[in-house]
Amino acid sequence: MTDSYPPARGNRLDPWFDSYAERAHGMRASEIRALFAVASRPEVVSLAGGMPNINSLPLDFLADLSARIMREQGPTALQYGSGQGEIAMREQIVEVMRYDGIHAHPDDVVITTGSQQALDLVTEIFVNPGDVIVAEAPSYVGALGVFRAYQADVVHVPLDNDGLVPAALDETLTRLRAAGRPVKFLYTVPNYHNPAGVTLAEERRPQIVEICRRHHVLILEDNPYGLLGFDSDPLPALKSYDADQTIYLGSFSKMFGPGYRIGWAAAPHAVREKLVLASEAAILCPTKWGQMVVTAYLQEYDWYTQVKEFRGEYKVRGEAMMAALAEYLPECTWTVPSGGFYTWVTLPDGLDAKAMLPRAVTNLVAYVSGTAFYYDGQGADHMRLSFCYPTPENIREGVRRLSTVIHEELELVDMFGTRPRELRAPGVESPRPDQV
Amino acid sequence: MTDSYPPARGNRLDPWFDSYAERAHGMRASEIRALFAVASRPEVVSLAGGMPNINSLPLDFLADLSARIMREQGPTALQYGSGQGEIAMREQIVEVMRYDGIHAHPDDVVITTGSQQALDLVTEIFVNPGDVIVAEAPSYVGALGVFRAYQADVVHVPLDNDGLVPAALDETLTRLRAAGRPVKFLYTVPNYHNPAGVTLAEERRPQIVEICRRHHVLILEDNPYGLLGFDSDPLPALKSYDADQTIYLGSFSKMFGPGYRIGWAAAPHAVREKLVLASEAAILCPTKWGQMVVTAYLQEYDWYTQVKEFRGEYKVRGEAMMAALAEYLPECTWTVPSGGFYTWVTLPDGLDAKAMLPRAVTNLVAYVSGTAFYYDGQGADHMRLSFCYPTPENIREGVRRLSTVIHEELELVDMFGTRPRELRAPGVESPRPDQV
Repeated sequence: MTDSYPPARGNRLDPWFDSYAERAHGMRASEIRALFAVASRPEVVSLAGGMPNINSLPLDFLADLSARIMREQGPTALQYGSGQGEIAMREQIVEVMRYDGIHAHPDDVVITTGSQQALDLVTEIFVNPGDVIVAEAPSYVGALGVFRAYQADVVHVPLDNDGLVPAALDETLTRLRAAGRPVKFLYTVPNYHNPAGVTLAEERRPQIVEICRRHHVLILEDNPYGLLGFDSDPLPALKSYDADQTIYLGSFSKMFGPGYRIGWAAAPHAVREKLVLASEAAILCPTKWGQMVVTAYLQEYDWYTQVKEFRGEYKVRGEAMMAALAEYLPECTWTVPSGGFYTWVTLPDGLDAKAMLPRAVTNLVAYVSGTAFYYDGQGADHMRLSFCYPTPENIREGVRRLSTVIHEELELVDMFGTRPRELRAPGVESPRPDQV
Repeated sequence: MTDSYPPARGNRLDPWFDSYAERAHGMRASEIRALFAVASRPEVVSLAGGMPNINSLPLDFLADLSARIMREQGPTALQYGSGQGEIAMREQIVEVMRYDGIHAHPDDVVITTGSQQALDLVTEIFVNPGDVIVAEAPSYVGALGVFRAYQADVVHVPLDNDGLVPAALDETLTRLRAAGRPVKFLYTVPNYHNPAGVTLAEERRPQIVEICRRHHVLILEDNPYGLLGFDSDPLPALKSYDADQTIYLGSFSKMFGPGYRIGWAAAPHAVREKLVLASEAAILCPTKWGQMVVTAYLQEYDWYTQVKEFRGEYKVRGEAMMAALAEYLPECTWTVPSGGFYTWVTLPDGLDAKAMLPRAVTNLVAYVSGTAFYYDGQGADHMRLSFCYPTPENIREGVRRLSTVIHEELELVDMFGTRPRELRAPGVESPRPDQV
């Protein structure tokens, strides 16, 4: 009997290698992840991470609040909750979204484990392997990771200093339709884009919505940074122009803190039902404790003043970054953010951000290579610099170290030459023809 | 130009209906979920839910602990953390698993959003649409929901009062192999089975592991209730016999509380890497706050004495359930649990648990129809009764109400007759031939 058994599958290192699903073969560590280990060494100035600076949160207030909830409602807060999320939390989220011009109903909000899980759920319910998602060039690396896990094909559309380019979007959607490739949704970060640092101009917003409506393409609007404009309240969300056309993703990770992992999706009604079912299968329910603490914080604390405090801190850091770039890296160009965490730097011709990274880390400064933000490995002429977490002094020192590395690289290029590269506008990538 | 656009897709109720992925069409509300709304009315005695009874948790201790962590480490606890989970939490989990006879390394533990997310991630990395998962008949409804979302085919294997039947497992795996249908994993709940209430006998454990090893079939061992034996410490986990053959899922939801949503997977090393990547794509990282609180609770509180307190409460409730069944429902048979939350009741011939449920709710008692625990709708001759949450008095009253409903049903059957049904042993379902 035993003779008839097949030989053991797998390999020496992983006996289950042959058992994995197709989608698992596409999973790989993001370039950001590989960097975390290195960048967390204290002597390295990390311009790589996207950790919010939450030191100014009112810890005494939150400590008292947490103790009170535990003492008075512990067995409720530590219990299972609704798969969709608690109604009190969803009511507060409706209030938060009013700052984006959105008038939603609590029924249409689904609480998730960070907005990352909302990204995952939306992709799960819409995307078959090989389906097309249209996304900005560049795009948030975490979204690309989700799209890859679901074996989507991502087609990039350029953005410029005013965000996603409407004519390019229309052209891309038309071309894809003509090629018989229906698009499942447009993924876009309109405010203080990660990684590009740009914001979608107000006059473009209704145009983007109209183009997507005309092509019957759903919009997935990801807005973690919307409240973090340096000097201003947010522009109207895409969802504010057409609620049925748009799934809006929000998060408390940047306007409060990531530690409870609470984000949300506000979706058209029928889509919301699917999201709840998918979320219940994935996690049963989001953290009730976290929802109760955040709900009480929003109800009892002057949270919008706290948001303004954050804005001021990020503004100082963003300005430090701009000043340091002007002083130390005149050979580069970069986007000028009006909020959020990031600037997108274009390197001088001949430099490769991915190849240069080990030398940067040796010089005790870290960044993320632009290649992380494309589905196909382009972007080596860019890097993302974040200014959210280090002090202004460290930002300046980090850029100084980076300039040393870049100047040494440029000397090598002068000596040995390099591959030619066409000129590109700052912050703009052309999608490769073979992507469409 | 506009003329060339396709007509709007979708339907009147859901404009995005035609856009969903194939997997989304299989998503449907579980029977448990539909019941929650009804069963939460205060006048209903719910024997349906699986909520742990956590009223005896030390709230003052936890309140002080929470306040201290917020005051002293707030910006750390509210920040992003490791995708795999914090090392201090994983070290504590290694200690917890020693009670199951498992000697693991913290590197091989992945923290998840409840063990439900671990179920989701394991299925994500192993299961292509149409792949076979072998699972007990009956099986945990939440696992079946995950398997359905990934379009798996589930083949049930019978269990009896000593748990999964080794000979039946061997026969099923042999038959599937002969049919050219490789099995991705065996899903099993060895301790205080949900919904069957039975526990895998100790002598069967090495047999199950040996059978799976021989067929090169991974074991997914789900053990949320292991520490909740009424009178005894847990039997050795399947993973304790062969760590490389088994992914073990654990949870703090029943031995502490579900509110932070912290569970884990302990996996073979190479599988663990895939799980971390999949989890980072899905949620970036699990809640750091929750991990820090639970870690401190395990380090600073006599948590095993608390577990024994829980055991005592569930034992009293389980005994109340057994006594009430013997008194009110001699026409039924049921499993006798030695721990956990559930008993599995076999109805007299001719009764249909699913059809009867609305009348039960009218009589102010709720349960879950056995059909929820099969992939194919069988199980109507069973119901799951839970004794974890109601008081002993309410358990007795709930069973009394249930007996009224069942006796009325039996009178109808006597009057009008019903379909014949073969005799079955309590707690055992035969897999239908067309499933293999």
